[in-house]
Amino acid sequence: MRLIILLAFGFMVIFNAFASQQPTQPQRQGGFSQASPTPTPTPLPPPTIKIDGYRAAAARIIGAALTSDRAYSRLAHLTDHIGHRLSGSKNLERAIEWAATEMKRDGLDNVRPEKVMVPHWVRGEESLEMLTPVPRKLTMLGLGNSIGTPAQGITAEVVVVRNFEELDRLGQGARGKIVVYNAAFTNYGATVRYRGQGASRAASYGAVAALVRSITPVSLQTPHTGAMQYDPAQPQIPVAAITIEAAELLQRMQDRGDRATLRLKMEAKFLPDAESANVIAEIKGTERPDEIVLISGHYDSWDVGQGAHDDGGGCIMAWEAARLLKELGLRPKRTIRVVLYTNEENGLRGGNAYRDAHRAELSKHVLAIESDSGTYKPEGFGLATTAPLQLRSNLQEIAKLLAGIGADSIAANGGGADIGPIMREGVPGASINVEGSRYFDIHHTPADTIDKINPQDLKLCVAAMAVMAYVVADM
Amino acid sequence: MRLIILLAFGFMVIFNAFASQQPTQPQRQGGFSQASPTPTPTPLPPPTIKIDGYRAAAARIIGAALTSDRAYSRLAHLTDHIGHRLSGSKNLERAIEWAATEMKRDGLDNVRPEKVMVPHWVRGEESLEMLTPVPRKLTMLGLGNSIGTPAQGITAEVVVVRNFEELDRLGQGARGKIVVYNAAFTNYGATVRYRGQGASRAASYGAVAALVRSITPVSLQTPHTGAMQYDPAQPQIPVAAITIEAAELLQRMQDRGDRATLRLKMEAKFLPDAESANVIAEIKGTERPDEIVLISGHYDSWDVGQGAHDDGGGCIMAWEAARLLKELGLRPKRTIRVVLYTNEENGLRGGNAYRDAHRAELSKHVLAIESDSGTYKPEGFGLATTAPLQLRSNLQEIAKLLAGIGADSIAANGGGADIGPIMREGVPGASINVEGSRYFDIHHTPADTIDKINPQDLKLCVAAMAVMAYVVADM
Repeated sequence: MRLIILLAFGFMVIFNAFASQQPTQPQRQGGFSQASPTPTPTPLPPPTIKIDGYRAAAARIIGAALTSDRAYSRLAHLTDHIGHRLSGSKNLERAIEWAATEMKRDGLDNVRPEKVMVPHWVRGEESLEMLTPVPRKLTMLGLGNSIGTPAQGITAEVVVVRNFEELDRLGQGARGKIVVYNAAFTNYGATVRYRGQGASRAASYGAVAALVRSITPVSLQTPHTGAMQYDPAQPQIPVAAITIEAAELLQRMQDRGDRATLRLKMEAKFLPDAESANVIAEIKGTERPDEIVLISGHYDSWDVGQGAHDDGGGCIMAWEAARLLKELGLRPKRTIRVVLYTNEENGLRGGNAYRDAHRAELSKHVLAIESDSGTYKPEGFGLATTAPLQLRSNLQEIAKLLAGIGADSIAANGGGADIGPIMREGVPGASINVEGSRYFDIHHTPADTIDKINPQDLKLCVAAMAVMAYVVADM
Repeated sequence: MRLIILLAFGFMVIFNAFASQQPTQPQRQGGFSQASPTPTPTPLPPPTIKIDGYRAAAARIIGAALTSDRAYSRLAHLTDHIGHRLSGSKNLERAIEWAATEMKRDGLDNVRPEKVMVPHWVRGEESLEMLTPVPRKLTMLGLGNSIGTPAQGITAEVVVVRNFEELDRLGQGARGKIVVYNAAFTNYGATVRYRGQGASRAASYGAVAALVRSITPVSLQTPHTGAMQYDPAQPQIPVAAITIEAAELLQRMQDRGDRATLRLKMEAKFLPDAESANVIAEIKGTERPDEIVLISGHYDSWDVGQGAHDDGGGCIMAWEAARLLKELGLRPKRTIRVVLYTNEENGLRGGNAYRDAHRAELSKHVLAIESDSGTYKPEGFGLATTAPLQLRSNLQEIAKLLAGIGADSIAANGGGADIGPIMREGVPGASINVEGSRYFDIHHTPADTIDKINPQDLKLCVAAMAVMAYVVADM
């Protein structure tokens, strides 16, 4: 039977490879570059936790999570009635107020917004038009943190490069041009460099604007925004994402010797920093309330779609994990702290502010878990390679309680952007890991909407997060 | 080995079924409803054609098709430099002029545009906004042939139905409302009824406008346009497509008891009929030039995307099939006639005009083949059930020449919209059949662009079309 399954898998791979020949049709591909299953460091010490004493609690948690619609209905309120939540926006303010109010109503402890000043970037109106060789509108989406163009736009000839090496070979040939990066998606880590650095690298050769093929394996004329960073050593030029379709069109034109001229208009700009907050709520520990297990997501999103997978779902699952424990009367020895971070997307001010405000108690943080890879079927957790081996051994043991929902793997690495600042101060960090093969199809797009989230997957995530947080906080 | 392959396939099916659980993420599904492999009528008479005499010609044709980039580069010119081609548009006029000029340059016989007056529907500006419970813009695309709204738009409360049965139960509850059809895609034939009839069915209960969930299995906020028809017995109300995301949002709101109010603005209207043309070119037959094998696609498209799969690719493959035969000096006994039909999408005036203009010679049409299911990997041809059994038998025999490129199936049914009028006059009709599982992802959308066409698939289609046309015309 095993042979047949292997053969079956072999044919499947061959079939799928064949079936996915089409150049830009939706394909299942890649993911985070760090998703590869590197082996766990060995040898691990034996676990110090005995999980038998937690089977009953885990059973109650999983049962409750899988029979409750609370998480989904809250996520639906957040996405449908509040919507996307860019830092500085009214929507994010409303979302923060709503969460704090509801968390108090849930009976969680110490509910409070912790003030954070955040960047306030606004997109404004924006457009991209081809003027020659054929007039047409192109779909675009400005990149977060970009400057705008003059009111009349920037009109210039295009030069397309497939990667930074082509840009370097082109060198001064980019002067006065709009540089288009047409880099095919391999994995997020490798491809997102063009979004982050593309503008400044092009500016270093005198380019007047840059356009970046959306960081995605698939497209139905789908633009993906996301943060870019200016190199202080280079002039700032505006930068926007274009669709795979537009990037390939410009590539074809260049390859045929057509001279494409574009007009880019963007009103993007920064307003003065705005007041925002990390939202915090707790289940106070019974015996060691000063020791903390932190569970979290980021509450802000880009200004398109609904911020459902990124990262409304992550916030709701952390919040609901705590609420469920409260409802079940499961109060662990240590404190479980929910943090809904502000401003992950374009500044990380929430994560940095948390570190600064809680510096005195960071050594009491036993574990920090973040969910920020989408709300898909959970497969387990990833623990930072730097975490103590004893903790890893215990997490592997605890994860066995999640085998029944298929969420029992502990990957060799993990963490998250928002918990990064406290991880760098020594807090052991982890991520909840999910089946994320479709995440980058919708990541930072108008299509990141709650209909892309399977309610069942959200329930499973809540169960996994609640069991892991509870047992770690109680062991 | 066969058992293992069967098992492998079984696992693949199970795996794929599992992998496609997500509610609205891109999934491979459905297709034309008529695509099911109904058994071929039996018994068939033995073929009257001996294919051995055609192996050399077929080899030359296939070899030439697979080593030429002409079809793709012409399709790229059509899509990139001319673009989409709605009836009445300047783009369609330019496309017609270009084809006629190039066909003459190719040395094809009797190249001429045959004048056809076509409807001239224009979209104008259009928008859809939610006013309550939460202000936001919704992505939409007016349906072809729809009337517009008053300049201030139509503002009304929404009522969502999943099908016509729910509408009928609602009855007068639709009065004064905007009816939203949220019908999930099953197959094209079953689901497209909401696009075609939705407006008039809603109007019959007093609705003021209708919105139709796009006819597609997948969406990345992707709106799909297409033709609608008004029932002369009902008042005309404006109708537009919305995305799966928007339809599901409105459904969730209704299910929660929210009252959603929308404002729909559309400038859509008909201008006076415009002059257009079917473009015709031939390879004149050597012995029976009055007998005709017709190969065709439709040259018009919707006014979004590039009309690449629908149906630029179909036109280019028919044209290139003839050009290739000419280049190879393969002149068959009968005439091969290429027809690039105008106005398939919103009127079928091209197909009807061809029938009327050529009525006297319809009895001399030996076979009419249309390509209008996208330019994917060809699997063979579909022959109308009404075609003579002797022809079916011969086509099955000829198709063996295409076994080496995997295009040797002759399906139990076939035909096409443009050749429909002459089929109803007795001309045997056929379609080229392709692996179309992804066609409806991009059908009638801004994402129907040439990057979705694999150049290799186009070459294979040209080869299949050319071999079939040549042998039928010569046998």
